[in-house]
Amino acid sequence: MRLARIAHPGGVAFASIEGDGDDAQVLEIAEHPFGNNPNFTGKRWPLADVRLLAPILPSKVIAVGRNYAKHAAEFGNEIPTDPMLFIKPSTTVVGPNVPIRRPRGVGRVDFEGELAIVIGQPVKNVPAARAASAILGYTVANDVSARDLQKSDGQWGRAKGFDTFCPLGPWIETSLDPADLALKSEVDGELKQDGRTSDLVHKIPELVEFVSGVMTLLPGDVILTGTPEGVGPIEDGQSVSITIEGIGTLTNPVQDV
Amino acid sequence: MRLARIAHPGGVAFASIEGDGDDAQVLEIAEHPFGNNPNFTGKRWPLADVRLLAPILPSKVIAVGRNYAKHAAEFGNEIPTDPMLFIKPSTTVVGPNVPIRRPRGVGRVDFEGELAIVIGQPVKNVPAARAASAILGYTVANDVSARDLQKSDGQWGRAKGFDTFCPLGPWIETSLDPADLALKSEVDGELKQDGRTSDLVHKIPELVEFVSGVMTLLPGDVILTGTPEGVGPIEDGQSVSITIEGIGTLTNPVQDV
Repeated sequence: MRLARIAHPGGVAFASIEGDGDDAQVLEIAEHPFGNNPNFTGKRWPLADVRLLAPILPSKVIAVGRNYAKHAAEFGNEIPTDPMLFIKPSTTVVGPNVPIRRPRGVGRVDFEGELAIVIGQPVKNVPAARAASAILGYTVANDVSARDLQKSDGQWGRAKGFDTFCPLGPWIETSLDPADLALKSEVDGELKQDGRTSDLVHKIPELVEFVSGVMTLLPGDVILTGTPEGVGPIEDGQSVSITIEGIGTLTNPVQDV
Repeated sequence: MRLARIAHPGGVAFASIEGDGDDAQVLEIAEHPFGNNPNFTGKRWPLADVRLLAPILPSKVIAVGRNYAKHAAEFGNEIPTDPMLFIKPSTTVVGPNVPIRRPRGVGRVDFEGELAIVIGQPVKNVPAARAASAILGYTVANDVSARDLQKSDGQWGRAKGFDTFCPLGPWIETSLDPADLALKSEVDGELKQDGRTSDLVHKIPELVEFVSGVMTLLPGDVILTGTPEGVGPIEDGQSVSITIEGIGTLTNPVQDV
């Protein structure tokens, strides 16, 4: 199922998206998508008539640094033995097509295309072999990073914590094998990242075990799995699109503020 | 006002605490304490008959590293020019008297006594001169830190992100000048930290301006202002108490898991 959050003329709701292209339909879900199969309200719209929001509002976003070897190398970093965790504040989250707001005076701001795990139920200490049972699905993320501040601050709470610095979307794919998916990032149509999730240093089941061994994960929490090589700056007026095979494309314009 | 969250025989509520010692009474608040003066339900109990919970469940906990010069020096670090921000996941938060759970195999775990700012309304880009209007009050925090992992990981998301690693309490004092308060930490009654908030490198109004310039702050969000010198390890079976003048004492036992 492609699970979205939508703004329609009557309000905001979770929804399932069926079909493709001009025929795509949005089916409204009653309440939330966690637990058993969702109930549908019977309301539906053409996809073109609704606005897609961030597909989930997480209580926390846990990110994994340097989880593709060639990305670690492009900044001269070693691959960490254990996954290197940092937290992005939930106020960073925006949906598709919402501008990434590039703050004044912070220097270089980079896109980072990433596969995002969306948690489906409250879990602690999940073994890797049972990680799938903790996962609702997968979406596309952009771990936007103020690169100069990241270096000068040391800790990344500011550099990765600005409002709008975590676009998510366009929806959550709940039926997907994430082990070997193509991930491509484009800025104004020019290919910048061209990776595969099979190159993740710490794989998804291992990440769920590791993170849930540290902290309780709640429904809707998001784990960003790291970015492949090819990250680079984005400027006012540009548009950045991240596509993951089997999910879709997350596009956001960039706007100086 | 001393603002608490309590578990009483009928459920969980915000409450105001009036009086001291054996005469202290807990007055239940209807709904929440944000915005105008709270309404009271008329229910009240002796303080001894209720259980104090974490006084707030924040959507995010923003922490400031190395914000007392002598604490930075005790680990051989420079004082950062700008406040060094990191985020603790909201799942770290526990209330008074709840055990700090020391995970197996992580090495040294330290207490860090800190003054915590509790935000009262949604704000972005608050100038320091108006910071007070954004603040609901102040509470006591323990920024528990797995010191060895903090060093080996580089980013502090894991070392400071374990469940129970952010005790808050015992309540929020809403009428307090935080500029020069004594802060003392004791382990099993032995004085370990003996600082004053007047030694904060980046003062509270400046921190509110800085953090709200990065991210939208929501009602209940918490900013940990940093810890003075004297941090040290805590072990299974010990008890750590942090006292801030004008607020009160936050005590938590330590338990290996």
